[in-house]
Amino acid sequence: METKAQVLYDFTAEPGNNELSVREGETITITNQSIGGGWVEAKNSRGEVGLVPEDYIEVNQAQPFTSGGNAAPIDLSFFDSHMPAQASTAQVDVAQPETPVTPVSPGFSSTSPDETSNGNDPWAVFDNNASGGFSNNWAAQPEGTETGKNSSNAWHSGGHGHPQAYQGPGAEDDEWDEEWDDVKSSGGYAESEAGEGGAITRGGAHGSSMKIALNKFPGFSKSGPELYLLSKQPAKGNKLPVYSGDVGPVWAYPDYQLDCVVADPKKGSKMYGLKSYIEYQVTPTTTNKPVNHRYKHFDWLYERLLDKFGSAIPIPCLPDKQVTGRFEEEFIKMRMERLQGWMTRMCRHPVISSSEVFQLFLSYKDEKDWKTGKRKAEKDETVGVMIFSTIEPEGLPDMEIIEVEQKCEQFNRFSRAMDDGVKDLLTIGNEHWKRCTGPLPKEYQRIGKAFQNLSSVFTSSGYEGEATLTDALTSAGKTYEEIAQMVAEQPKKDLHFLMETNNEYKGLLGCFPDTIGVHKAAIEKVKEADKLVAAGKITPSEKVGMSKRASTMSYALQAEMNHFHSNRIYDYNRVMQQYLEQQVKFYEMIAEKLRLAHSQFTTM
Amino acid sequence: METKAQVLYDFTAEPGNNELSVREGETITITNQSIGGGWVEAKNSRGEVGLVPEDYIEVNQAQPFTSGGNAAPIDLSFFDSHMPAQASTAQVDVAQPETPVTPVSPGFSSTSPDETSNGNDPWAVFDNNASGGFSNNWAAQPEGTETGKNSSNAWHSGGHGHPQAYQGPGAEDDEWDEEWDDVKSSGGYAESEAGEGGAITRGGAHGSSMKIALNKFPGFSKSGPELYLLSKQPAKGNKLPVYSGDVGPVWAYPDYQLDCVVADPKKGSKMYGLKSYIEYQVTPTTTNKPVNHRYKHFDWLYERLLDKFGSAIPIPCLPDKQVTGRFEEEFIKMRMERLQGWMTRMCRHPVISSSEVFQLFLSYKDEKDWKTGKRKAEKDETVGVMIFSTIEPEGLPDMEIIEVEQKCEQFNRFSRAMDDGVKDLLTIGNEHWKRCTGPLPKEYQRIGKAFQNLSSVFTSSGYEGEATLTDALTSAGKTYEEIAQMVAEQPKKDLHFLMETNNEYKGLLGCFPDTIGVHKAAIEKVKEADKLVAAGKITPSEKVGMSKRASTMSYALQAEMNHFHSNRIYDYNRVMQQYLEQQVKFYEMIAEKLRLAHSQFTTM
Repeated sequence: METKAQVLYDFTAEPGNNELSVREGETITITNQSIGGGWVEAKNSRGEVGLVPEDYIEVNQAQPFTSGGNAAPIDLSFFDSHMPAQASTAQVDVAQPETPVTPVSPGFSSTSPDETSNGNDPWAVFDNNASGGFSNNWAAQPEGTETGKNSSNAWHSGGHGHPQAYQGPGAEDDEWDEEWDDVKSSGGYAESEAGEGGAITRGGAHGSSMKIALNKFPGFSKSGPELYLLSKQPAKGNKLPVYSGDVGPVWAYPDYQLDCVVADPKKGSKMYGLKSYIEYQVTPTTTNKPVNHRYKHFDWLYERLLDKFGSAIPIPCLPDKQVTGRFEEEFIKMRMERLQGWMTRMCRHPVISSSEVFQLFLSYKDEKDWKTGKRKAEKDETVGVMIFSTIEPEGLPDMEIIEVEQKCEQFNRFSRAMDDGVKDLLTIGNEHWKRCTGPLPKEYQRIGKAFQNLSSVFTSSGYEGEATLTDALTSAGKTYEEIAQMVAEQPKKDLHFLMETNNEYKGLLGCFPDTIGVHKAAIEKVKEADKLVAAGKITPSEKVGMSKRASTMSYALQAEMNHFHSNRIYDYNRVMQQYLEQQVKFYEMIAEKLRLAHSQFTTM
Repeated sequence: METKAQVLYDFTAEPGNNELSVREGETITITNQSIGGGWVEAKNSRGEVGLVPEDYIEVNQAQPFTSGGNAAPIDLSFFDSHMPAQASTAQVDVAQPETPVTPVSPGFSSTSPDETSNGNDPWAVFDNNASGGFSNNWAAQPEGTETGKNSSNAWHSGGHGHPQAYQGPGAEDDEWDEEWDDVKSSGGYAESEAGEGGAITRGGAHGSSMKIALNKFPGFSKSGPELYLLSKQPAKGNKLPVYSGDVGPVWAYPDYQLDCVVADPKKGSKMYGLKSYIEYQVTPTTTNKPVNHRYKHFDWLYERLLDKFGSAIPIPCLPDKQVTGRFEEEFIKMRMERLQGWMTRMCRHPVISSSEVFQLFLSYKDEKDWKTGKRKAEKDETVGVMIFSTIEPEGLPDMEIIEVEQKCEQFNRFSRAMDDGVKDLLTIGNEHWKRCTGPLPKEYQRIGKAFQNLSSVFTSSGYEGEATLTDALTSAGKTYEEIAQMVAEQPKKDLHFLMETNNEYKGLLGCFPDTIGVHKAAIEKVKEADKLVAAGKITPSEKVGMSKRASTMSYALQAEMNHFHSNRIYDYNRVMQQYLEQQVKFYEMIAEKLRLAHSQFTTM
């Protein structure tokens, strides 16, 4: 199907950038909407093809953009832009020659435009398959495949936000070829999966995915939380205590709140300058000693954290990998800002910030230390659901399964509702952004021009004393032109941060279906325990153990939710204050400018 | 051709009003766009037909609204709405059985949608027929016909302004049937035209027209300023002196500036209540004694002033005759406001305000006095170009024809340029009005709702201390809803007056082509004088007289332009001050509201 779009604003192509000049009001045909980075490929009526910024066009409503997982009639393409090309390239390092990559399974991964209405909505599995359906879906995945790796579930793409004209396309991406550099040393999946005998990867966060390591459990089930529920191994690794706090179960919070500064991006190069990359300086507040990291190191960290903690703690995606473009500096600045946001969030989490892998990332001593630490982290066996084996509720009574289920349902309901609310705000914010940077300042500018134009007509009257009016009128006109400029620039000063925070939360909430799904599956298994005992598949004491472990899982979930709530209250409080403060300044400045313009008219 | 339109906002029909309910996003077909009063008749996809407010829809750009005399791509239908039905009905009282109404002449009257690009642009005659073409166009009119009476030249429709939802349609108009009441007594045209033997009426101000009384001038020409240039009659009526002032030639200004108050509209009825009308109380500041007048009396006054002074002084049109609708009160208020504006402008004019007919209108003693005065005014013979015979330049030297022509050209250029500027401002103002009352407050409301919605999701978390955030967030949401309301209501407080003033000037400037045309025609005649002398059609002394009279006409024009400039400077100064003052208040109030909303968040 051809997708037609209407051009909203004039856009002039920059030579040599494969761009297409378009005029306001023109109708163009989208030839490729998977370009990413805020660009689409389009063809004009003369048959010329080139790139056009997404936010300069409006797609015909009857033929919506492929916008993942959101059925809202508003164009969400800016928030849900797919980057399949990148996503697949980004994962090249984990392709295993001995395990063929099977086609995308309909169960979990697809880029269908209306994921909310089918099984691809991450939340939908809880609607349609409330009792057991989830694990069935899961079990349907062929063992050891990499399903979902190559697909992008745009529904919780945490990265690409409101339209940023500076996110341009480029002929090549300096990050991707770099991914090949140390495939050997970092081939994390290949090593660990081979060791564990099986892994299911679910299409989750924007092209990356949550991976839950599995064992072949003889005669019972090949997948899911049973690995932990019926595990006989002693827990490995540091204990993660859960305490009873004022607000309920809480993680153990450190006395000193870790933080770090991501700064000073520098261009480095390899292979006699043929390949270049950006290195960021990361300085933890603990050591105050900076370490350098490239984006792919952040990505490595993300994969490790997801691997290790993803079942218990939603790990938000990294900011989207972007194709670099003509505004490289702004792109780097934007990425840095988002990496800072991601790191701050990780630092704030008591479990993540105190983990060995995170500490390694923040404070490795030298290259050797880093390489050794990397290998160790990649060999960590306490991953997937096994993280729960390290969790120790302190002084908290075992919970009944019914209560476990109620808590889980409550969190599920809340995170779904918040997800809707956040997306709603993002949609509206995006529209407001477009208005504030597009038609509104254009209108103020035209008002300003009209005043100035009238003033110059008046000047031509030749009537004496005309200047008493025309000077003031010209000045009023210029004031409205200044206001136009202010209006256009304001979103960067306030709406930007509101959008960024909500975008971060959208990404975070997008991880909840996966995390909650692990709990749901465990609850289902515990509820089946009687049948399993009757069938002689588990012993009665194993049944008791399962129930106790489900209780432990629930305390972990409650601690995590309480952590989430406390952070959420802090974050929204802060961002709303910032937003309103800037808005006040904005309106006060307009009023002041107009007051000045007013004072120039003669009182008669 | 079918005209399709897109519905911008939901509109719910009021029962019994012949209205059509439409939904945002719906496509409808315009079946009649000549309804007027801000309404069009449209058909929906189910074939239902009814009235829809013009400002709730957007006509497909490829098929523009019939918008008189403005080629701008923006829908100006609100400013240029045609009311042919009313215009023709309004003039019923002047239809003469003995003088057949001929079809509309292409020369001066048409409702073609692009009048600016053809001969119907009142300015166009100066472009295309710079030397003599104007009088040719004039002469082409059959003598004694009523061309233009039944057409409306929307180009300078001075009335209907920016979208006012309250200007609704009605089943019948209480004004029109009243027009029949005293056809016998007020049949002004029939009487005077019969007496003078000929009249040419040009399509001019919105369905009304300027009428210049003519004599059959034996063996020379039947039309135009020759009547005055070669007149041998002594001047009748009060003298109108022109003095040399600081700014050049000026009218004689009275010591006391007349003004009046139009107020207290009252519904009256006739024929046992079958026919009703609105009577306004007009109180001149001189006598402070109120007199009552219906709209049709104002219209009578307008016709008299146009008749008597139109060749020398641009007489702005009365506010458009409106069909009454369901918001009758607001309509009456709006008409009153515009009648007040018109009366104030007339009072401010030294020539008009001191004229007998204007004084009669403002301060007649009783019904008998009024009737007698009316009859006298209708019999006034010093009308059309003959008004120049009463003008007496005091202590001003005769001007050469070349200088006369230069002055005329200068005023022509100025008024054309100002006309463009004013229309430009109106177009932009109209768009701004639509945005401020349509999409913008809708967006603020949605932002407000999104905040409140998120707040109520947060409240559902069950997390302790949630209220510290949610109370403030709800309050911020409500603040944005209040801002939405403020934004939507603001145009009535500031833009309204800016639009009204510019609308008034648009109407006034629309009369300039007619007035300047008289001067142009006179100049052409004077330039032909040598040939006429050679051909023996006039004597050499008549030629000298013509030149002197053209000089007198020029002084009148200069005095009038100086009056115009001085009023313009005053009016724009005042309206800009008012506009900016209200804008300052508006932005300050928003800032104040946001400051309050900000203060409710907890500082962390």
